[in-house]
Amino acid sequence: MSDSRPIGIFDAGIGGLTLVKEIHRLMPGENLIFLGDTLRAPYGGRSDDAILAFSLIGAKQLAEMNIKMLIIACHTISSVALEQIAVAVKDIPVIGVVLPGVRAAVLRTAEKKIGVIGTSATIRTHAYSKAIASIDNDIKVYGQACPLFVPIVEEKLYDCDVARISAQLYLYDLIDIGVDCIILGCSHYSLLMETIQGTVGTRIQLLDSALWTAKEAQDLLTALGTLNPQKNGGFSKSRFLFTDLHPDLEMQASIFLDNKMPVVDKVYLGVL
Amino acid sequence: MSDSRPIGIFDAGIGGLTLVKEIHRLMPGENLIFLGDTLRAPYGGRSDDAILAFSLIGAKQLAEMNIKMLIIACHTISSVALEQIAVAVKDIPVIGVVLPGVRAAVLRTAEKKIGVIGTSATIRTHAYSKAIASIDNDIKVYGQACPLFVPIVEEKLYDCDVARISAQLYLYDLIDIGVDCIILGCSHYSLLMETIQGTVGTRIQLLDSALWTAKEAQDLLTALGTLNPQKNGGFSKSRFLFTDLHPDLEMQASIFLDNKMPVVDKVYLGVL
Repeated sequence: MSDSRPIGIFDAGIGGLTLVKEIHRLMPGENLIFLGDTLRAPYGGRSDDAILAFSLIGAKQLAEMNIKMLIIACHTISSVALEQIAVAVKDIPVIGVVLPGVRAAVLRTAEKKIGVIGTSATIRTHAYSKAIASIDNDIKVYGQACPLFVPIVEEKLYDCDVARISAQLYLYDLIDIGVDCIILGCSHYSLLMETIQGTVGTRIQLLDSALWTAKEAQDLLTALGTLNPQKNGGFSKSRFLFTDLHPDLEMQASIFLDNKMPVVDKVYLGVL
Repeated sequence: MSDSRPIGIFDAGIGGLTLVKEIHRLMPGENLIFLGDTLRAPYGGRSDDAILAFSLIGAKQLAEMNIKMLIIACHTISSVALEQIAVAVKDIPVIGVVLPGVRAAVLRTAEKKIGVIGTSATIRTHAYSKAIASIDNDIKVYGQACPLFVPIVEEKLYDCDVARISAQLYLYDLIDIGVDCIILGCSHYSLLMETIQGTVGTRIQLLDSALWTAKEAQDLLTALGTLNPQKNGGFSKSRFLFTDLHPDLEMQASIFLDNKMPVVDKVYLGVL
């Protein structure tokens, strides 16, 4: 059994393209419809009400595009609105980016101390703490918001001193506490893996949610018998839709896609 | 002649509160209606179409609140949409934050080399270059986008190494070029004055647009005979409206208001 329909990916902006890259690496035949709400990005600093309202509109729009699965590529949305989205899109299987990284970290922490880094909204919701507690109540979770990391990535400054100084600012407390795993709870952070690893040292294991979410998507498609029968060519058939096309968008998007420049289209996203 | 009606101030978010502070310092009797579109902030990285559409909605909403003057406190909006806003609000005098800083810098540059720092959108529009050229065509203008400065201010990191390192990253080129004035072309940057001055040295004069815009508003109100007859009490009568109230908003707003915490209200801003 197989299914050649696309996978829908909804994101608040462009960071979720790190997940697109991982999906194409693992499942090169899958074609995707990526929808990024660049008109209202970033969601990270907004109220829960705003995040819920914005993301329901986007998810419903994607659900109407004959997709076989919906992945919420944004940690802020996955933390705040995943359940409501799953209800809204009815029969389409929905996965977010919080649980895959959590499951990987829970299996790996020997000290039972996990650090989570993300946007202010992601950390504020305690979505990670709750998800980890639901698996193993003995694990302690330490959240740290890192609001400079997103603009550092979007400005391609990940190899500059400013990235290293920011990493020290945000991460030294987690090191002092003695965590042995840190979940990268924001899709942009994949591009800061080397800087973060350099700051925290090799004793601490980093869990990249993009990688683990791609694996979870593959497992679920396999279980449902809906993997794409094609063995390659998925990227060229994929569509990249955004709600605002600013002049730097394609350049910024290519940062997340190993410098591949996607063809982007504008889409009008509901009324709000 | 006098006029006790409020001055309307429109901003993409909260940075324009630096202007509120300067107005209350210069004209303590004036009461204000500040409207910040926090639901869609920041405008800095969006397309011109989006910036124009968003800001026309906000400006029209303020124009209906019986204001005697409209100030556009955001440099991005002032660079992209000021003329269209002036047309849309008809008889209400409108001023932006670009020209006041420009006039001050043109009077001060001996080398005829002015630096301008701001968001990507502000720098991209060349609004400053055009405004300066319209006064003195011999002056050379050097723009530098500083996209990390806004999150650094909003996270209260202006006294940290990350602020100094970012300032070096962005400003060393302007020093090498030999500018003798730098216009702070983003309302957030007022809070980085000390860090920026420390980086560029005392030979370079910094022009804070908030200060010069407040002076221009005072001059215009005086010329029109519409200054408020009250000598104080303006701040307590002012209203602070925002389109999204996230949990950190009041704290963040107070950063721009000498730690005074404003009473904030939510306002629904049109359909888009």
